Amino acid sequence: MSEALRFPVEPWAVREVGLHIDDLARSESVFSLSNGHIGLRGNLDEGEPVGTPGTYLGGFCEARPLPSGEAAYGMPESNDTLVNVSNGKVIRLLVDDEPLDLRYGTLHGHERVLDLGAGTLARTLDWTSPAGQRVKVRSTRLVSFDQRAVVAIRYEVEPVGAPARVMVSSELVTNEEGPSSAGDPRTATATDVRLEALDRHADRDWGYLIHRTPHSGLTVAAGMIHEVDGPKGTYVRTDVLPDLGETTIGCQLEAGEVLTITKYVSYGWSSTRSVPALRDQVMAALVSARLTGWQGLLDAQRAYLDHWWDVADIQLEGDGEHVAALQQAVRFAAFHVLQAGARAERRGIAAKGLTGTGYDGHVFWDSEMYVLPLLVATMPRSSEDALRWRLSTLEDAKARAATLGLGGAAFPWRTIRGRECSGYWPASTAAFHVNAAIAAAAVRQVSWTGDVTFACEVALPLLVETARLWMTLGHHGKDGHFHIDGVTGPDEYSAIVDDNAYTNLMAQENLTAAAVLVDAWGDAAAQLEVTAEEAGAWRAAAAVMHLPMDRTGRVRAQDADFTGHELWDFQASFDHGHYFELYRKQVCKQADLALALHWRGDAFTAEERARAFAYYEPLTVRDSSLSACTQAIVAASVGQLELAQDYLLEAALMDLRDLQHNTGNGVHIASLAGSWLALVAGFGGMRDHYGALSFVPQLPPEMTRLCFAVSWQGRRLRVDVVGEEVTYRLATDAEGPITFLSYGQEVVLEPGAERAEALQRIEPLTPRPEQPPGRQPGPGGPSWVS
Amino acid sequence: MSEALRFPVEPWAVREVGLHIDDLARSESVFSLSNGHIGLRGNLDEGEPVGTPGTYLGGFCEARPLPSGEAAYGMPESNDTLVNVSNGKVIRLLVDDEPLDLRYGTLHGHERVLDLGAGTLARTLDWTSPAGQRVKVRSTRLVSFDQRAVVAIRYEVEPVGAPARVMVSSELVTNEEGPSSAGDPRTATATDVRLEALDRHADRDWGYLIHRTPHSGLTVAAGMIHEVDGPKGTYVRTDVLPDLGETTIGCQLEAGEVLTITKYVSYGWSSTRSVPALRDQVMAALVSARLTGWQGLLDAQRAYLDHWWDVADIQLEGDGEHVAALQQAVRFAAFHVLQAGARAERRGIAAKGLTGTGYDGHVFWDSEMYVLPLLVATMPRSSEDALRWRLSTLEDAKARAATLGLGGAAFPWRTIRGRECSGYWPASTAAFHVNAAIAAAAVRQVSWTGDVTFACEVALPLLVETARLWMTLGHHGKDGHFHIDGVTGPDEYSAIVDDNAYTNLMAQENLTAAAVLVDAWGDAAAQLEVTAEEAGAWRAAAAVMHLPMDRTGRVRAQDADFTGHELWDFQASFDHGHYFELYRKQVCKQADLALALHWRGDAFTAEERARAFAYYEPLTVRDSSLSACTQAIVAASVGQLELAQDYLLEAALMDLRDLQHNTGNGVHIASLAGSWLALVAGFGGMRDHYGALSFVPQLPPEMTRLCFAVSWQGRRLRVDVVGEEVTYRLATDAEGPITFLSYGQEVVLEPGAERAEALQRIEPLTPRPEQPPGRQPGPGGPSWVS
Repeated sequence: MSEALRFPVEPWAVREVGLHIDDLARSESVFSLSNGHIGLRGNLDEGEPVGTPGTYLGGFCEARPLPSGEAAYGMPESNDTLVNVSNGKVIRLLVDDEPLDLRYGTLHGHERVLDLGAGTLARTLDWTSPAGQRVKVRSTRLVSFDQRAVVAIRYEVEPVGAPARVMVSSELVTNEEGPSSAGDPRTATATDVRLEALDRHADRDWGYLIHRTPHSGLTVAAGMIHEVDGPKGTYVRTDVLPDLGETTIGCQLEAGEVLTITKYVSYGWSSTRSVPALRDQVMAALVSARLTGWQGLLDAQRAYLDHWWDVADIQLEGDGEHVAALQQAVRFAAFHVLQAGARAERRGIAAKGLTGTGYDGHVFWDSEMYVLPLLVATMPRSSEDALRWRLSTLEDAKARAATLGLGGAAFPWRTIRGRECSGYWPASTAAFHVNAAIAAAAVRQVSWTGDVTFACEVALPLLVETARLWMTLGHHGKDGHFHIDGVTGPDEYSAIVDDNAYTNLMAQENLTAAAVLVDAWGDAAAQLEVTAEEAGAWRAAAAVMHLPMDRTGRVRAQDADFTGHELWDFQASFDHGHYFELYRKQVCKQADLALALHWRGDAFTAEERARAFAYYEPLTVRDSSLSACTQAIVAASVGQLELAQDYLLEAALMDLRDLQHNTGNGVHIASLAGSWLALVAGFGGMRDHYGALSFVPQLPPEMTRLCFAVSWQGRRLRVDVVGEEVTYRLATDAEGPITFLSYGQEVVLEPGAERAEALQRIEPLTPRPEQPPGRQPGPGGPSWVS
Repeated sequence: MSEALRFPVEPWAVREVGLHIDDLARSESVFSLSNGHIGLRGNLDEGEPVGTPGTYLGGFCEARPLPSGEAAYGMPESNDTLVNVSNGKVIRLLVDDEPLDLRYGTLHGHERVLDLGAGTLARTLDWTSPAGQRVKVRSTRLVSFDQRAVVAIRYEVEPVGAPARVMVSSELVTNEEGPSSAGDPRTATATDVRLEALDRHADRDWGYLIHRTPHSGLTVAAGMIHEVDGPKGTYVRTDVLPDLGETTIGCQLEAGEVLTITKYVSYGWSSTRSVPALRDQVMAALVSARLTGWQGLLDAQRAYLDHWWDVADIQLEGDGEHVAALQQAVRFAAFHVLQAGARAERRGIAAKGLTGTGYDGHVFWDSEMYVLPLLVATMPRSSEDALRWRLSTLEDAKARAATLGLGGAAFPWRTIRGRECSGYWPASTAAFHVNAAIAAAAVRQVSWTGDVTFACEVALPLLVETARLWMTLGHHGKDGHFHIDGVTGPDEYSAIVDDNAYTNLMAQENLTAAAVLVDAWGDAAAQLEVTAEEAGAWRAAAAVMHLPMDRTGRVRAQDADFTGHELWDFQASFDHGHYFELYRKQVCKQADLALALHWRGDAFTAEERARAFAYYEPLTVRDSSLSACTQAIVAASVGQLELAQDYLLEAALMDLRDLQHNTGNGVHIASLAGSWLALVAGFGGMRDHYGALSFVPQLPPEMTRLCFAVSWQGRRLRVDVVGEEVTYRLATDAEGPITFLSYGQEVVLEPGAERAEALQRIEPLTPRPEQPPGRQPGPGGPSWVS
């Protein structure tokens, strides 16, 4: 922490002082604004210089050929990629005919602030043009949580020291030029897609453009309208070209006089609706925004966030070195998770949210396993929407299963619209645990909300079809156990293995829960043609699910063969490895059995947990951002609190410190959500096994207080760990009492009541486990990332 | 055999009567001529109609990008593909200004004959043009075994019934248009490559073109020269364009008068030599050919073949239904293997030889495991050349091993010039058994020739570097055994498995043989920095090589997990399967453990062999042409002679009957060689374990005689199985006696001596094994191929 931080530590904001002009992509991701429906990267108002220009819409994608060296049956022939749509953020400024471009002239001051309480990105700059005219510019930008189709920007210009002629060009730009993807598969090619112009129109202060993707056939309308507050005679006109809408605002300003422009931008998109329908949709959104007005949108934004933070905020106190940084980081993390999921509304939550083109904008299993656990506990409507989106792709998943010769549904490894978009099947199609993740999230949604409509309409079909998948994926072996062969678990440095423990345990839960739901909702199950025999077969398979052990019989094996493999030689370098070499040795990219220790902790004794954690820690290199948070949770569960805190720091600071040097492609939504989980499920010890809420709170070593809240079946429960005590408080407005376990003992709280308990320490059963050389966790990130 | 055969059965020729104009690609492959250096598909003289135009040169290839859906470390970024070079076969005929095109006019007769004794493709046709002029055309074509750079064509035209004005356009055509590859990865895209014109020249009756590949930077020169025998005043001139050389020959012929043209074509190519050098090279070849003359080339061709057939011919007798067809097929097979390997000379022998663009013209492991066993026993100079080619790629293989984090050398799965050309690593990079195949072929070369120079210069470095590979691929497990994890065996329906039995057994032999060679050639080994400790480690690993068993402990398992997997449900269809589904179930694409039963038969007892063969037969679907011949060999070794004969028929008739419906992409060189092996190693029971030649002869059920010969350390031994007896005869010109085993008993024969033994029957220990439904072998091929 001795180095100067790009973003200094403060509790409720992320601030950048000065401008890191050679590393813009990183701050563009960090300063992204989104409501889950629309996402804007934190590009400079004037559009240039730029790292990666980005304006994204949930589910708006283009299909592209997916090349393969050697074609084979069942390989996807094309995939979908997130598209950079018409950019309504652009506001160019000319001062006495000189364009504001921070690469030229003299920059006296530049500051950007992401306000986590207000939900805005504010910018101030003070600049003298090459010709010597000084101006101050202030802009504030928001993507409305309240009006999901609306973006608003307040832009102010003020000459300093001398009058100036000011021209502002406020634009909608389609088919922007962007940097090429340059070979990194995780960065995208969203900017390679070209949209076809369909329609456009402009009048005095407003205009719109309508475009279509050539292959996926999606249509997008983008509109803008302006309020201008300038001196008398301020000139305003709007023109449109096929790929450009431009409102030109010009005036003469005295020194200290301010031109204020409020720009409202709206988007509408569809695969089915007509051009006139989309035009009307964006016009309606613009009128609605203008009716509400700038201050009205600001107020609604803060109200929405106040409501959210009331549950989602985690308060940390203590004198430890990293407490303040962690406090900021976990708020930043929760804010970005909210931005990704708040208004996604029947579209998937991508690995990067709508903050960048990493992973082509695809949704993965971490949506269900990392992001939804936070949302279900803080904003269950969002997690419900995400699962209803999955349900909307069920027919695609059933078709994919049929293609693979399997029953039930096989959900895609990476997707935008529901179809498989991966070109490397050993790490995608074979990773069937994505189906268990979806089933687990559906079960969790039912547990946390008690929503019977959801249970019947969404959870039941998802569980039934995934249970059917497992029954065809697995088989009863001659040894009497149920085996699932040839699959890939979460650890992407192993693949195509028999009996991956995490997969088997998650499948076991999936099968059992499906049978339970079928019992509970017989009529609905009958419509899915589930018989008692079928559900009985699910229970029978779950009852004899195989869990491999190592040769000593003391350590749970990651899969049937893993612990027999050669150990990776970490004394040699670990710069890179061919999949071949990685797959056949004992080296883990990321938490795999550790995920089972967390999510199926009920299947292990405390001793087994401690032994397994100690076995896999020295093998796990954490080349995935999905790892540190899970390792934090499991470390806490086995009493390794220092280690848990180190992992927590790494997960939480992933993007603020750019620990993996790829934040420029978008923030790591799952790792950010994981930092919340590391505090709540890790130090809070929160679990929901068998639908029962439970806690085993412990304090992180550096802290004197950890306070968080969750919303369980509509009841807000606050857990406040201070000093040697934990206090549980149920909100006064809760509809009835809440029941949960504290250190294994049942607690029942009435609305408004509280209960204090002495903290119990989990005694570690092993020494602090070692990590591979150079892979020790911490706030600076593992040392190998260079 | 009730259907009319495309190629009627006769002993020394393959004849097509009439023209199958809608299925030209198949006959083009069957009628391909090659000497291993130059290959010509059996395209019609007049160039059109055409299935796939093809003129190929050994090792002449272009580099092309190898796309991948998701890039990863160590994946090849480009591959090489065989190129269709300047076509010198084209001789167009115009009769009274009408082009000879068999799609028009009236075809009275058309016949093509591939003469296996003469080494020529002859054609006669009798045609009346749409305008009513009848002509007879005779052509004969050869690719000289004697002058490896030379092609010669004799072309004769004779008007019938009326005089005619005849114009012949004899061409060299570069960048021919060809059919697209249309999605089948096994067909090629050789015709997609465009060559750049560098140089050209023409004079009266000759000309040349010089071109270069844009990416691989190979230069090719093609020249032609003509002898014309026509009436006085016959007009001859030659012109060249960048992509076309054209000698025009015109005359007026009386009815019955003949115009005879002899065309000599030559090729030279290089990655380093200059344009003038290549020009001189093709000119020298043309002059040499012309000096030798047409009859001289024909005579040399026959002499070369007489010498070859003296060893390579297998004579079959008997009244059985398929004996005559098999006699033809095995000669056709041996002829094509000779064509692939005769003059390859330090270039690889591709899966399709030089007969088509299947598999992009790549060389695979079947070169060493299927083709070289035939060549070493009949023309050891060719197998030596093929292994010297492998040695020439050793540096590439060492670099590839280093990329993979391994020691020693990792030879490519598919290649033309030595670098890995596969885009799907689980079925290529992971198939490390290719390295054992190369080592085994090198050992075999030493055993069969006793060539100490080869042993030192070629076998030693190949064995040392492959042994080093195995030592880094495998590891000593806690169970005391040596394990090789995460590899793919020959069965491409399993992949990335631990302890593939075939791989482990071949690696064991590789390690042991390497240690033996190091002992024998200490000085040469010292130059490779082999220490006694290192060779000792090889022996130690070989001594404890792990061989997995099934749960019963009675059947050798194909790999650590195979026999525990779910059985494939053959009652459901087997039209196609995703790799995922295939990999994790008990289904074999092809012989895998069966290959071990053949090549490492010494590692099994007779009971183990019989049990293992019976276990895998019902699982093996034979979707690879590499399977039937090996199954024939193992079936014979366990006394299943009817089954062995069925497999032999399938292997031998693969291309003559187009059993897999892809002969149009080129003939299956390995399966053709395999039909020779099925007779010699199958029914002849020939083995060379530990460098000792041995036989266990049995007669195929339909036959009364099976007679074959091999050349062992320069001594030609004939094995003649007739009735109840086998007679071994050593050629009179052998340099010293020969020692071998007959039914396990040592036999020593002096030059010119013979020994007769009574046939011994191997009693089957199991009933005739079943195959998967629809996969029974036979002369019509398995019934599933549609």
